[in-house]
Amino acid sequence: MKAFTRLWTVEEALEHFLTVADPKPRGREVVPLERSLDRVVAEDLTAPEDLPAFDRSTVDGFAVRSEDVRNTTPDRPVTLRLVAEVRMGELTAFGLHPGEAARVPTGGMLPSGSDAVVMQEHCRVEDGRVVVLRGVGAWENVIRQGEDIRRGEVAVRWGTRIRPQELALLAGLGITEVPVHLPPRVAVYSSGDEVVPPDHRPRPGQIRDMNTSSLTGQVARLGAVPKPGGILPDDELIVTSAVQDALRTSEVVLVSGGSSVGSRDVLEAVIPRLGRPGIVVHGVAIKPGKPTILAVCDGRIVAGLPGHPVSAMVVFDVLIRPVLEAMLGLRAELRGPRRMRARLVESLRAPDDRDEFVRVAVRWEGEEPVAEPVLGKSGIITTMTRADGYVRVPMGVLFPAGRAVEVRLFD
Amino acid sequence: MKAFTRLWTVEEALEHFLTVADPKPRGREVVPLERSLDRVVAEDLTAPEDLPAFDRSTVDGFAVRSEDVRNTTPDRPVTLRLVAEVRMGELTAFGLHPGEAARVPTGGMLPSGSDAVVMQEHCRVEDGRVVVLRGVGAWENVIRQGEDIRRGEVAVRWGTRIRPQELALLAGLGITEVPVHLPPRVAVYSSGDEVVPPDHRPRPGQIRDMNTSSLTGQVARLGAVPKPGGILPDDELIVTSAVQDALRTSEVVLVSGGSSVGSRDVLEAVIPRLGRPGIVVHGVAIKPGKPTILAVCDGRIVAGLPGHPVSAMVVFDVLIRPVLEAMLGLRAELRGPRRMRARLVESLRAPDDRDEFVRVAVRWEGEEPVAEPVLGKSGIITTMTRADGYVRVPMGVLFPAGRAVEVRLFD
Repeated sequence: MKAFTRLWTVEEALEHFLTVADPKPRGREVVPLERSLDRVVAEDLTAPEDLPAFDRSTVDGFAVRSEDVRNTTPDRPVTLRLVAEVRMGELTAFGLHPGEAARVPTGGMLPSGSDAVVMQEHCRVEDGRVVVLRGVGAWENVIRQGEDIRRGEVAVRWGTRIRPQELALLAGLGITEVPVHLPPRVAVYSSGDEVVPPDHRPRPGQIRDMNTSSLTGQVARLGAVPKPGGILPDDELIVTSAVQDALRTSEVVLVSGGSSVGSRDVLEAVIPRLGRPGIVVHGVAIKPGKPTILAVCDGRIVAGLPGHPVSAMVVFDVLIRPVLEAMLGLRAELRGPRRMRARLVESLRAPDDRDEFVRVAVRWEGEEPVAEPVLGKSGIITTMTRADGYVRVPMGVLFPAGRAVEVRLFD
Repeated sequence: MKAFTRLWTVEEALEHFLTVADPKPRGREVVPLERSLDRVVAEDLTAPEDLPAFDRSTVDGFAVRSEDVRNTTPDRPVTLRLVAEVRMGELTAFGLHPGEAARVPTGGMLPSGSDAVVMQEHCRVEDGRVVVLRGVGAWENVIRQGEDIRRGEVAVRWGTRIRPQELALLAGLGITEVPVHLPPRVAVYSSGDEVVPPDHRPRPGQIRDMNTSSLTGQVARLGAVPKPGGILPDDELIVTSAVQDALRTSEVVLVSGGSSVGSRDVLEAVIPRLGRPGIVVHGVAIKPGKPTILAVCDGRIVAGLPGHPVSAMVVFDVLIRPVLEAMLGLRAELRGPRRMRARLVESLRAPDDRDEFVRVAVRWEGEEPVAEPVLGKSGIITTMTRADGYVRVPMGVLFPAGRAVEVRLFD
C-alpha cells in the first residue's frame, strides 16, 4: 500500500485544486423563459424599461392631487369634483386639475397631475362629487413608475440560479429569452472487481453498485448533467480506455472505489496517462474520505472517490461540489450547501488528524432546532438515509453536547 | 365591492380546506430507479435481503478469531498461521481454525470462524506467519451481514422524497423498479383585462403577466406538474369555460388576480357553476394575500389567488403548497418549507388583524445567521428576488430587533 506522505486539509486541497483546475462554465445557450427555472444566468440581465411602466394604484379608490386633501379628516372632509374613471388596461389620457378626482381600480394607471389614491372606503360619492374623509400623502397607495426596477438597472445578476421570483421579474420585463450557462457533464464510474450492477444478483463476496446511483443523483441535484458510465474492473488498460472515452464528452470524470488497495492503485497508475498535470491532490484529512484523488488532465477533471458509499457522498459534497458549482457559473455567494444552526444533543470529537463530517438528523423541539448524530461506519448507507445533513468537527476538536453548531444540509 | 364578513386565520383556513378537499395522490406508477430521484415513494419498500449479504472487512488486513489476539500488544505479540487469502468479489469458501489468520482486502468476505480483522499496519508477515502487534475485539473492522439493513426491514418509507442516498440504498438492495405517486397536475391561469403575455409589448395601462411564471415555477419546484393556461379576461363565460376545460386534465386550477374588483368578482361568480361544494374559504387573515378564495368543485380544487405578484407567491406557499404536498403523497413530517432560526436585524410588527409574511434576506455574520427584512409593497417583485425566505409575524405581535425568529426558506 502506498502511504500518504502528507494529508491535505480540506481548505488546502480545495484552494490548490481550484487554482490548478480553474473550473469555468463550458459555454452558454439561450433558452425560453419557461424552460429557464433552476438554470444559471450567464450575464447580467438589465431592465430594458421601467417596471411598472406607469404610476399604478394599489387600491380601489380615487386618484387625487394629495395637496388637495392634505389635512383631511372625517371632521374636516374635502369635496372634489369626480371628473372621470380610469379603465383597467387602458391609457389614462386625461389629467387632473386642482379640486378634481378620478375613480381608479387597483392596478389602474394614474391620471397626470394626480399623485395619490384615496381608498374608496374613505370616500363618499355624492352627485358627481367625491367627499374625501381621510387625507393621503404624496404617492400614497401608488406604485410609481420604475419603483420595482428602473430601466438600465440589473434585474438578475450573472451567476444567479433562476427561482420562481426571477421568472416573474423577467416576465414582467418582457425578457423571454434567457442566456444561461451550459451545465458541466459529469461521467460517473464505479470500480472494483467485487461490484455488480444493481439489477444483478450478487454472488457471495460480491456487492451491488451503490455509488453510481448516489453520485449521479448528487450531480443532478446540483444542476449538472450526470453520465453514468458503469462499473470498471481493477484493470489499468480498461480503466484508461474508459476514462479517455469519457473525457471526450464530459468535463469531469468521477471514479469511485473499489474500496480495496488494488482499485485505488489502478486509478493512481492510470491518471498520469490521461494528460497533464495529473494528480494534484492525493489524500485529504477528512473522515470519511481520506483516500481521495483530485487530478487535472489536459484541462479536464478526474477524481478518484472512496468506495464506501457514505465516504463517496461526503467527498462529493465537500470537494467535488465546489468544482461543479464553479463550472455551473454560480456566483460565489450562492455556492455551497444550505446551512443552519442547531443544538447538538450529543458531544462529538474528531480524530486528531482529520476533520470529521458527522451525519446528523435535525429535529425541532418547539422553536429550537436540534441536531442528533447518526453514528455508524462509512459503509453503512442507512446512516445517510436517516440524516438531514452533516456537522463538520475540526480535527482534534470536541463539540460538547448542548453547543449550537452549523449543520450543512443535504440538497 | 363585497366586504369579507370574516377573515379566516391561516390555520383555520388550512384545516377547514384540507378537511373538505381531502387531498390525496391521484395514483401511482412504477419507474426505473435511475429516473426516481425526487419522486415520492408510494409504499413502504422493504429490504428483500440483508445488506451487506455477508460479513465484510472495512480495512486491508488479516481476518482472525478475536479470542486469539484479545490481549495482544506490541510488547506481547501473537503469531498466527497465515492459511489463505480472501479474494475480492469471490466466495470465501474456507474457514479459520484457532491460531489461524487469512489476508483480507477492504470489502472482502470474512472466512467462517473469523470475527474480526487486524489492520495490516498492526501486523508483520514472516515466513507464512502473521505476527499481530495489536489486538482487536469481536467484530472490530467488520461490517456484519445485515448491519446496514436486515431483510424485511423497511428501507424507504411511504411518502419519502427520494434523495441520492435513497437511490444508493435501493441500488444496494437490488430494488431497481420503484413505485411512486403520480404528481398532481396544476393548471395556472392569470386573469385581468390589463394583463398581456410576457412576449407582448404592453400598451400604456397594460402590464405583463408575471404570475404564470412564478406560480408554474413554484408548482414545478414542489415536484407537481404545472400546466400554464394563459390569461383570462374578466368575463364570466370565458373564465367558466376555461376552468371547466382545465378541470378535465388537472386536479388543481389556480387563477391569480386581476387585482381589480372586477376580476375578483368574476371568479367568485364562476366557482358555484363548477361543482359542489364550491367556495370553502374566502378571505384569509394574511398580509399580503387577504382576498384568497379556496374552493372544491366536485372533488377538484380551484383557488383564486391575489393579483399582486408577491401576494400570489405568498398565498401559494402558505395555502396551496400544503394541499399539493398532500397530493404528492409526502409524509407529514416531510412537508412544509425548510426552516432555520436567524436573528432579526430590524423590529417587525404585524397589523392587528392579519399575520404578516415579511420577506427577509439571510446573511451570515460569522457563525450567526441574521435575517434582514426586505420591505416594499406586495406589487414589487424585486422584494422577492432580493429575499431568501419569509418571517411570519403573528397578528398584532411585535418582534423586536435582535430576536431570534424562524425563517421559512424559499425552495
